[in-house]
Amino acid sequence: MAPSLEAEPESVASVLANPQKPQLVAPEPEHCPGPESQQAGTADSCAGCPNQAICATAPKGPDPDIPLITARLSGVKHKILILSGKGGVGKSTFTSLLAHAFATNAEQTVGVMDTDICGPSIPKMLGVEGETIHVSSTGWSPAWAMDNLAVMSIQFMLPNRDDAIIWRGPKKNGLIKQFLKDVEWGDLDFLLVDTPPGTSDEHLSVNTYLKKSGIDGAVMVTTPQEVSLLDVRKEIDFCRKAGIKVLGLVENMSGFVCPKCTHESEIFKATTGGGRKLAEEMGIAFLGSVPLDPRIGMACDYGESFFDSFPDSPACRALKGVVKGLATEMGLDPEVVMPEEDDA
Amino acid sequence: MAPSLEAEPESVASVLANPQKPQLVAPEPEHCPGPESQQAGTADSCAGCPNQAICATAPKGPDPDIPLITARLSGVKHKILILSGKGGVGKSTFTSLLAHAFATNAEQTVGVMDTDICGPSIPKMLGVEGETIHVSSTGWSPAWAMDNLAVMSIQFMLPNRDDAIIWRGPKKNGLIKQFLKDVEWGDLDFLLVDTPPGTSDEHLSVNTYLKKSGIDGAVMVTTPQEVSLLDVRKEIDFCRKAGIKVLGLVENMSGFVCPKCTHESEIFKATTGGGRKLAEEMGIAFLGSVPLDPRIGMACDYGESFFDSFPDSPACRALKGVVKGLATEMGLDPEVVMPEEDDA
Repeated sequence: MAPSLEAEPESVASVLANPQKPQLVAPEPEHCPGPESQQAGTADSCAGCPNQAICATAPKGPDPDIPLITARLSGVKHKILILSGKGGVGKSTFTSLLAHAFATNAEQTVGVMDTDICGPSIPKMLGVEGETIHVSSTGWSPAWAMDNLAVMSIQFMLPNRDDAIIWRGPKKNGLIKQFLKDVEWGDLDFLLVDTPPGTSDEHLSVNTYLKKSGIDGAVMVTTPQEVSLLDVRKEIDFCRKAGIKVLGLVENMSGFVCPKCTHESEIFKATTGGGRKLAEEMGIAFLGSVPLDPRIGMACDYGESFFDSFPDSPACRALKGVVKGLATEMGLDPEVVMPEEDDA
Repeated sequence: MAPSLEAEPESVASVLANPQKPQLVAPEPEHCPGPESQQAGTADSCAGCPNQAICATAPKGPDPDIPLITARLSGVKHKILILSGKGGVGKSTFTSLLAHAFATNAEQTVGVMDTDICGPSIPKMLGVEGETIHVSSTGWSPAWAMDNLAVMSIQFMLPNRDDAIIWRGPKKNGLIKQFLKDVEWGDLDFLLVDTPPGTSDEHLSVNTYLKKSGIDGAVMVTTPQEVSLLDVRKEIDFCRKAGIKVLGLVENMSGFVCPKCTHESEIFKATTGGGRKLAEEMGIAFLGSVPLDPRIGMACDYGESFFDSFPDSPACRALKGVVKGLATEMGLDPEVVMPEEDDA
């Protein structure tokens, strides 16, 4: 028999439903009250079970921190996750561009939470790499990239910029919880949650902790390549299983226009139809294609706003279309979310 | 006081030394025998400690599976990790190119182990996406991409290609252990271990499980951008702390030559000196720069060997230089590792 994951059809649902399930040393016995139940470790059937001590000491019932998180985030109007599946498709870049776009309206306040613990890029991209966190009796203060743009990342807590953060899952989950529970986010119009690649600890934790306070949905970022689309399909599957609405798909690095001869090359070729076809197949909104523009990467390396630096570039126009499409998907007025300079 | 990670200076070393340390519910008391010691949970000082039950039931001493892994891999001459820090810089692409390069010598046998559990790309890139795993009494058979190129990935175990693999750390670690312990790798000249981005569960596990059988070293992959170099520095820090030799650094996607006018553009601009400067700074070997060639991505999407398809392209010549440099760093004869067609 081939070792197939089909043997455990319940595992995904059970992981999502019971994020706190303790790690057992033996299979659950027939009359097990459930390792996460109130009777775990103390029921009659627990006597003699090798898991008894583990179950008895494991945390019971709903996480007591979740109401605290919900209270802390009560002033946050919209919560958006940025997901991709594959790494390096421009997730953090898109998150920082989206933050700058929302922040162009001075009456909106935007927060960015970087849940990529082992490879935080957001502080660099938003130009707040040198910041540290200040703590008062009411909580941790985020760093402010602009008057109306708050940022929180593990990068602010590192003694040395180049230190590796060698953390297994539980420590990462603990920090993400602190970012939600202890940071003084205050009144925000948008909280953007940038995630690392994959569908693992960070994604499960963000979903668990934010479920009660409500997630507006997730934006998927991909490149046109099949290897990236492959992982986006997995990420959409994750969202469906976790009950997170997919707000739409953005195709990044769609084509490169030679600055000398204006010939457009498909650097990451869409051998299987690219993002637009995938969005159609999966029944989600296609928010647009953003061409590959080296100046986006440069703006990120320097921590500047690409919107301010190159407002007339094709990439900037494409990004504005994506932001407006996203606002529409969220039921917001695109002209309020990102007012055009010309209209002002 | 700002919450700094400096408060726990021992954590990295302790994580690396005690991969099995149980998760405690309270701080270790003054006379704690150590939660991973043989006396854990049973010493006099354990009486009344809230961790007692957890420590008593946690696994003790060295992992009994490590000698099994060492025995299973006794026929593997060289073990190479491919690391990057950031995602999407071409780690899996480079791994598959390296595998094809080593496999050009028909007398060498190469194995590729994909430890990216949540976003496996290797099967697609090596053209074995549709394979499943066969199990016999002696172990799991890897998939064979060529007569002398074996592959193992979680992708082979999925009932549906697009299923999300929503696993927290411990389950990922368990599968990586099985890939090393249960797969019939047989006699290999090279085992290439492709890793996901970051410095977390997968990296710690691979290091722990392979330590005894010996890792030749790690190849770092980066793009010229500062946001990627930032994460590579963290990954080099990880290797130093974990005692893994860094064999060298490859700069990927270094420049793009317009197919129409041959003008070269720096798509991912090296605003801070790129890979070469980083390698100098960190005192590691710089193996070379590989230009961005859309045909590499296409070859990967189709699961073909880029070396066979476009042997005369600049990217192919650059890659050959990288492979030869790597062979030299490993103390091998470059002409044996990858014989040139012309010389044959």
